[in-house]
Amino acid sequence: MSSLKEECGVVGVFGDPEAANLIYLSLYALQHRGQEACGIITLDEGRMFAHKAFGLVGDAFNREVLQKLVGDRGVGHNRYSTHGGRSMQNIQPFYFKTPYGHFALAHNGNLTNANDLRKKLEAEGSIFQSSSDTEIFMHLVAKSRADSILGRIKEATKQVRGAYSLVILTEDRLFALRDPFGFRPLVLGRKGGAAIVASETCALDLIDAKFEREVAPGEIIEISAEKIQSHINGQRPEQRHAFCSFEPIYFARPDSVIFSEPLYEVRKNLGRELAAESGVEADVVIAVPDSGVPMAIGYSQKSGIPHEVGLVRNHYIGRTFIEPTQSIRDFGVRLKLNPVESVLRGRRVIVVDDSLVRGTTSVKILRMIRSAGAKEIHVRIGSPPITHSCYYGVDTPSRDKLLAAQKNVKDICEFIGADSLAYLSVDGLQRALNDQAKTKYCYACFSGNYPEEICSEILPQPTDAKGPGLRAKC
Amino acid sequence: MSSLKEECGVVGVFGDPEAANLIYLSLYALQHRGQEACGIITLDEGRMFAHKAFGLVGDAFNREVLQKLVGDRGVGHNRYSTHGGRSMQNIQPFYFKTPYGHFALAHNGNLTNANDLRKKLEAEGSIFQSSSDTEIFMHLVAKSRADSILGRIKEATKQVRGAYSLVILTEDRLFALRDPFGFRPLVLGRKGGAAIVASETCALDLIDAKFEREVAPGEIIEISAEKIQSHINGQRPEQRHAFCSFEPIYFARPDSVIFSEPLYEVRKNLGRELAAESGVEADVVIAVPDSGVPMAIGYSQKSGIPHEVGLVRNHYIGRTFIEPTQSIRDFGVRLKLNPVESVLRGRRVIVVDDSLVRGTTSVKILRMIRSAGAKEIHVRIGSPPITHSCYYGVDTPSRDKLLAAQKNVKDICEFIGADSLAYLSVDGLQRALNDQAKTKYCYACFSGNYPEEICSEILPQPTDAKGPGLRAKC
Amino acid sequence: MSSLKEECGVVGVFGDPEAANLIYLSLYALQHRGQEACGIITLDEGRMFAHKAFGLVGDAFNREVLQKLVGDRGVGHNRYSTHGGRSMQNIQPFYFKTPYGHFALAHNGNLTNANDLRKKLEAEGSIFQSSSDTEIFMHLVAKSRADSILGRIKEATKQVRGAYSLVILTEDRLFALRDPFGFRPLVLGRKGGAAIVASETCALDLIDAKFEREVAPGEIIEISAEKIQSHINGQRPEQRHAFCSFEPIYFARPDSVIFSEPLYEVRKNLGRELAAESGVEADVVIAVPDSGVPMAIGYSQKSGIPHEVGLVRNHYIGRTFIEPTQSIRDFGVRLKLNPVESVLRGRRVIVVDDSLVRGTTSVKILRMIRSAGAKEIHVRIGSPPITHSCYYGVDTPSRDKLLAAQKNVKDICEFIGADSLAYLSVDGLQRALNDQAKTKYCYACFSGNYPEEICSEILPQPTDAKGPGLRAKC
Amino acid sequence: MSSLKEECGVVGVFGDPEAANLIYLSLYALQHRGQEACGIITLDEGRMFAHKAFGLVGDAFNREVLQKLVGDRGVGHNRYSTHGGRSMQNIQPFYFKTPYGHFALAHNGNLTNANDLRKKLEAEGSIFQSSSDTEIFMHLVAKSRADSILGRIKEATKQVRGAYSLVILTEDRLFALRDPFGFRPLVLGRKGGAAIVASETCALDLIDAKFEREVAPGEIIEISAEKIQSHINGQRPEQRHAFCSFEPIYFARPDSVIFSEPLYEVRKNLGRELAAESGVEADVVIAVPDSGVPMAIGYSQKSGIPHEVGLVRNHYIGRTFIEPTQSIRDFGVRLKLNPVESVLRGRRVIVVDDSLVRGTTSVKILRMIRSAGAKEIHVRIGSPPITHSCYYGVDTPSRDKLLAAQKNVKDICEFIGADSLAYLSVDGLQRALNDQAKTKYCYACFSGNYPEEICSEILPQPTDAKGPGLRAKC
Repeated sequence: MSSLKEECGVVGVFGDPEAANLIYLSLYALQHRGQEACGIITLDEGRMFAHKAFGLVGDAFNREVLQKLVGDRGVGHNRYSTHGGRSMQNIQPFYFKTPYGHFALAHNGNLTNANDLRKKLEAEGSIFQSSSDTEIFMHLVAKSRADSILGRIKEATKQVRGAYSLVILTEDRLFALRDPFGFRPLVLGRKGGAAIVASETCALDLIDAKFEREVAPGEIIEISAEKIQSHINGQRPEQRHAFCSFEPIYFARPDSVIFSEPLYEVRKNLGRELAAESGVEADVVIAVPDSGVPMAIGYSQKSGIPHEVGLVRNHYIGRTFIEPTQSIRDFGVRLKLNPVESVLRGRRVIVVDDSLVRGTTSVKILRMIRSAGAKEIHVRIGSPPITHSCYYGVDTPSRDKLLAAQKNVKDICEFIGADSLAYLSVDGLQRALNDQAKTKYCYACFSGNYPEEICSEILPQPTDAKGPGLRAKC
Repeated sequence: MSSLKEECGVVGVFGDPEAANLIYLSLYALQHRGQEACGIITLDEGRMFAHKAFGLVGDAFNREVLQKLVGDRGVGHNRYSTHGGRSMQNIQPFYFKTPYGHFALAHNGNLTNANDLRKKLEAEGSIFQSSSDTEIFMHLVAKSRADSILGRIKEATKQVRGAYSLVILTEDRLFALRDPFGFRPLVLGRKGGAAIVASETCALDLIDAKFEREVAPGEIIEISAEKIQSHINGQRPEQRHAFCSFEPIYFARPDSVIFSEPLYEVRKNLGRELAAESGVEADVVIAVPDSGVPMAIGYSQKSGIPHEVGLVRNHYIGRTFIEPTQSIRDFGVRLKLNPVESVLRGRRVIVVDDSLVRGTTSVKILRMIRSAGAKEIHVRIGSPPITHSCYYGVDTPSRDKLLAAQKNVKDICEFIGADSLAYLSVDGLQRALNDQAKTKYCYACFSGNYPEEICSEILPQPTDAKGPGLRAKC
Repeated sequence: MSSLKEECGVVGVFGDPEAANLIYLSLYALQHRGQEACGIITLDEGRMFAHKAFGLVGDAFNREVLQKLVGDRGVGHNRYSTHGGRSMQNIQPFYFKTPYGHFALAHNGNLTNANDLRKKLEAEGSIFQSSSDTEIFMHLVAKSRADSILGRIKEATKQVRGAYSLVILTEDRLFALRDPFGFRPLVLGRKGGAAIVASETCALDLIDAKFEREVAPGEIIEISAEKIQSHINGQRPEQRHAFCSFEPIYFARPDSVIFSEPLYEVRKNLGRELAAESGVEADVVIAVPDSGVPMAIGYSQKSGIPHEVGLVRNHYIGRTFIEPTQSIRDFGVRLKLNPVESVLRGRRVIVVDDSLVRGTTSVKILRMIRSAGAKEIHVRIGSPPITHSCYYGVDTPSRDKLLAAQKNVKDICEFIGADSLAYLSVDGLQRALNDQAKTKYCYACFSGNYPEEICSEILPQPTDAKGPGLRAKC
Repeated sequence: MSSLKEECGVVGVFGDPEAANLIYLSLYALQHRGQEACGIITLDEGRMFAHKAFGLVGDAFNREVLQKLVGDRGVGHNRYSTHGGRSMQNIQPFYFKTPYGHFALAHNGNLTNANDLRKKLEAEGSIFQSSSDTEIFMHLVAKSRADSILGRIKEATKQVRGAYSLVILTEDRLFALRDPFGFRPLVLGRKGGAAIVASETCALDLIDAKFEREVAPGEIIEISAEKIQSHINGQRPEQRHAFCSFEPIYFARPDSVIFSEPLYEVRKNLGRELAAESGVEADVVIAVPDSGVPMAIGYSQKSGIPHEVGLVRNHYIGRTFIEPTQSIRDFGVRLKLNPVESVLRGRRVIVVDDSLVRGTTSVKILRMIRSAGAKEIHVRIGSPPITHSCYYGVDTPSRDKLLAAQKNVKDICEFIGADSLAYLSVDGLQRALNDQAKTKYCYACFSGNYPEEICSEILPQPTDAKGPGLRAKC
């Protein structure tokens, strides 16, 4: 039950008369990647149709809205929930009308040289509508002197750094591109004659589309009515990739296959490695739902200690909850989870969770488990300690709020109230990810070794932006 | 993933200045018992305050609404979702102003002589506002000549038959009563000086209240500022009880203790009994979430076959979903569940589910599992075949739509597309429920042996009621 | 610009396949009679369809809602705006299901023996849903032992006293009835084969229906598919009628014909009488819009002093307005009216208004006129001083808030800041109403001579009713 | 009751802690200038706060929204209602963040070289968010190389042609500017220490501000905390002005003073001139409300024929109305107006209206008047025939839909069903406007003599803009 948040899910459809419906369902399948807001833009006979709204996909769209989104092509976007102010302007997909036709784009990731580019563009007279780094890409395309859209996109990619999985819709093309490191996932599928691009394969499953392949790091896929072409992104794709390791650990859905790995198996492996590295005598293994469940099953299978449901998740969590003024201890966690006393009372319990970020939720969960009668609590974390911030699209807190950047494991164990605590080692993680060569994944949040050089200077937000936002400048 | 629906969850609070907040949270914890509508009524210095709305508790209430529900006492209700029309008039709690003060009530259950009583009351000039059988109870109280509220309530209980777990709020009392058979659960808890009554213990857990005991079948608990008194219901409580066996099989939350049994353990026992009765060689045991999960774990532990997550549930299910006009095979089920191919491909799979009602959903789930590569599918159901309708508050379809009333097991196995199918025996169920003497639970839906005589004549609805509604007359 | 409020507008349609649309438009035409809430109930093949909501007709209904209100017959109601709490339960039409079929009714007026009847009914076990006196009528019908609906209605009318213009819809009948005094208007019209009943003729005009005649005081009109029959109300219609004189003075629309008089001419006559009784030298006559306009024109024509638009009314008045914390003098009135300086500066101005109730608005209007430069202000009121409360459906304030019950004309003149003030005499009013015999209209609010005996005891509200409500008991 | 529509009302406030409330009330007073949408932007300590919505001011804003619009300065805008699609992007005020601070603007008018400028800007890489010509002004400011905001604004005004009354808010300044012809009105007022800019004086009246003077044609007023400075607009103000003559005829409120004339008197003069030019024997003069009322009064005073209210306006017009499928003749007009039969029956009626555009509404009104019994109908129009389109902000239909561009007066008289018809002459109009020298007002819609050269080529909309939009290119 990580408190980490990612920035988005993206979808593109080209060549299906029900494009809006398919995008809508794909966004629904990708809802776990962003719950703040969502949007769909379609194109039909030279006209663009858009609907964007705050809230979940199932609330933001209805039949009437979808029927107005006509056309056989479109793009969609899910945005994650920030805690501060929110602006309609920041809901994607973004779009604008150019002299050479419509242009819409949806972005998952984070550009690391956004501030510099924005300042330069504003000085030249560009007007920004949002505080999103994604809009920079649009201005770079608008100002490019290349004589084709593909050329303009390539010129733009030459100037940006950082993480981007992008889908772009123009008058007669759908482009799907991924930065050379491949931080964020992006997959290509087919449904009849239509091409589908989406952040994860679970979106393809829901709409009965066939998974074809990943969009490669550093690749631009150009989809038209005639053909699908692959181009090399302006920047040379490097040998070394940097897939986000938190996608398999926590973000992606366990039924997805991303970075070519079936996630359920990766998560079970994380549990197995954990059991091998940090075994402990106990009566029962329980998971913190939901990403911890396959890890707990893996741990149980490796260790032979039975897996039980020790924490029941409430499925009807609403938007906001009104807390009584009288204190209900650990109120927020209780709304989501309730311990099963018959599983816990008098037992030595192994609690498997995917990660520890701030640790505040774990304190409450362990307190609930303890008060339900657990005799011993042994916490096992399916990932290494997070000691550094992410600049590639994961909304990590600043280092002073990262538990593992501030305390050693012993102190953390005490802080959360466990009898023992163990993290998975980076080696164990790499084994589970099948990346012993260490050239596929990004482990920067565990090590501080960023794939690109990151300046130490963290600039204030370029506008009165409402999100938390991490921006770095070199 | 039973398609059975129950009629309600009820809550009462007496003696806490934040009564509305506590009822709200309790209803939230009881949301699984009814998702169509909800309501809260509180009482303060002789004035009643009410809010009722369609939708989930988390949507229907907000801070502003709750702040208007002042008072240290109140009652609340969750109503289940019907598919047909719905009427604001049917949302509970019901209330009316009497010459002797306010009167509000919330009901879980179903009266079996509702039609007769309603006709009689209407002939005498009573005006009904709803199509609910619950309103009958109010009119019986209003027309009673007894000189106390307790006396009026007793007179009313003498006239009604069937299932009722009721909470009643008057000017200075909270009453909690349960019919002599005890069909539906009702528990009493304490939070500081306040008394709490709720359908299940999970409601007490969320608000940090202490579970005290069940309201006994045939008991009227009278709660006032001074004391809590227990009365015998007008009808003599009989030796034989008739707790609904579908509460532990499916309805109640696994972290609840009802009818004095911890449900998670009961469900695991159902799985164990199933494994003992109907073992089969296989590679993996998977559950149809969520009530099937403890059963699958029990099955796995008994059989030694590993339990895996073979079906992933989508947590963001919205109100309604727009289906593309192009057919997506098994669309409705796909929205809720997605198979995990890496678990299923090439495997012999045991699928554990809580019950089979119409079987239509199972057909789709098995098709998905099969197309994800399962080599064999062995379905194991944690309850006996349902062959008869329920008249006590469970919304069972009519017999011609009950799969097991129409087909034998072999035909059902074929119909749903399984390689083998086994139900739990009634004996196995009784062992799991610890009811070998067969005096505690109602098994009528498996056997047709109803606790009371039920007329064969099923009357049409007394009004143009919108719900499906089952009514029986003798 | 009287601050008096009336209780309602009512409509009934029988025999038009678009009944709901016609009722909706009629309510829209009768919007001036009530702006708090509105509702429509229709009947089709034994099923009732209802929609009720707070707000104006144009906001409360839309195409989708109207399409669901199927059937060729129905009743509708507009409710006036109270300032205190409001309850969904009080929105009319009311309806209930009886053993002899559906029964819906809409009421304009006020029963003067409501308290007594309610107490008696509650003691017998009747359950009330609203705090409205209208519900009493329903219970009297439900408890009647007469063997026809007409008989039941007659029995009910024998028991109630006060003002009622009622439309009642049953399975196969539409009834329209008016109390023997005829306090409130009610007219019958025809549109093709359909019968229409409405509070005022302007509703007939909008839907292109032909005005046929008034429903007579003490008459029950029974409309069925076969014929229209006239019955004498249970109480003998008396020689003396008591039409509300404030209907022509203020409530009704100037394009309506009610109590057989064209209202525009009555209002012009009021102005003429006023000029004849209380002439004064001046440069210009202006009206307080809107009911004052025909009076000002009458005054101008009689006196020869030119009529000008001295106060411009804002047509976009919304629901609520946010007042700045810094004081804007006479803010509330400025939102509605703005003086035209070029008409007023340096002039001697006659201001014609329909009535003076509390006088607080007049103070503000006169201050605006004065500050726009008027040299002299002579106020002329088109009705006599209001000195007594109304118990027949007009929401007059209590006597201590009635300006003319507390002050003499000279003091009122000073209080509102006029240079002179004159009211119309009761004789003048009777001439304008063509009621020199004084047997047609009720003048109780000007004289205290009530048509029926009214007890001095004003009882508190029978329930925690939210409206202001005037109730009298004998 | 002209069917012409204007584009907007604008407001700016500088120096009042309740800026948002004052703008809100001003927009409310200017609601007649635009009903489609409205918006307010305020500035406080370097942060901008915005709220924009479709609908009337009274619906779009509430207390909560206004409280969030903090700051002592801001701008507001009302937008007129188009019939086609509508886009959130087109709601003003527009704003953007520049490297030199915030910039917000609100515009009334229409630029005549919008297409050319837009094409040029897009070719240089500017991204447009709306289809509004107003956004062009923002891009010109953003791309200017001047070193002050004033300089940038001046550079922008040098490039645009056509009609603009603009209010611009920057970090520490409020600018108010008007094009050299002064097509649209704009006035300056004071309220305590605060400066107020608004389209009409009626906005100043409502908020108790003092009218100071008009913003002069070709003037830029720069308001800061220290002082108010007047600058000459980049273009030399010419001798000849071109105030829109439809502002006094129809658009502006009769209680406003614009172009230094009190509108009520101008309208009465129009009626007087009409009576002098085109007298006819008749019994009664009636107005088509509302702008026709002062004209009818003027006509009556000049001719001696009495003025009466012959058409009653319904004050509760909602957003949309559901028309019955059965035809109600002249349904749309009936919703707004109802004839007063007692005024019309058997009379020779003079009907005074402000203008005739398409004539379709007049046909219906005359038919209603005729069926209410009028013996003769003489239509008198308070303006000359409209024969040409407007390119300066009035939404005139194309010439083929302009009645007077297609038919002569006799044919029009027949078409609308009148017994006689007369328009005011251009000379009469100029006398009423006190513009005998013909240098103050624009009469292009009556004559085709445009103040600037207008190309005959009417280009299609530059984007898939939703509004009707007239654009001309030279």
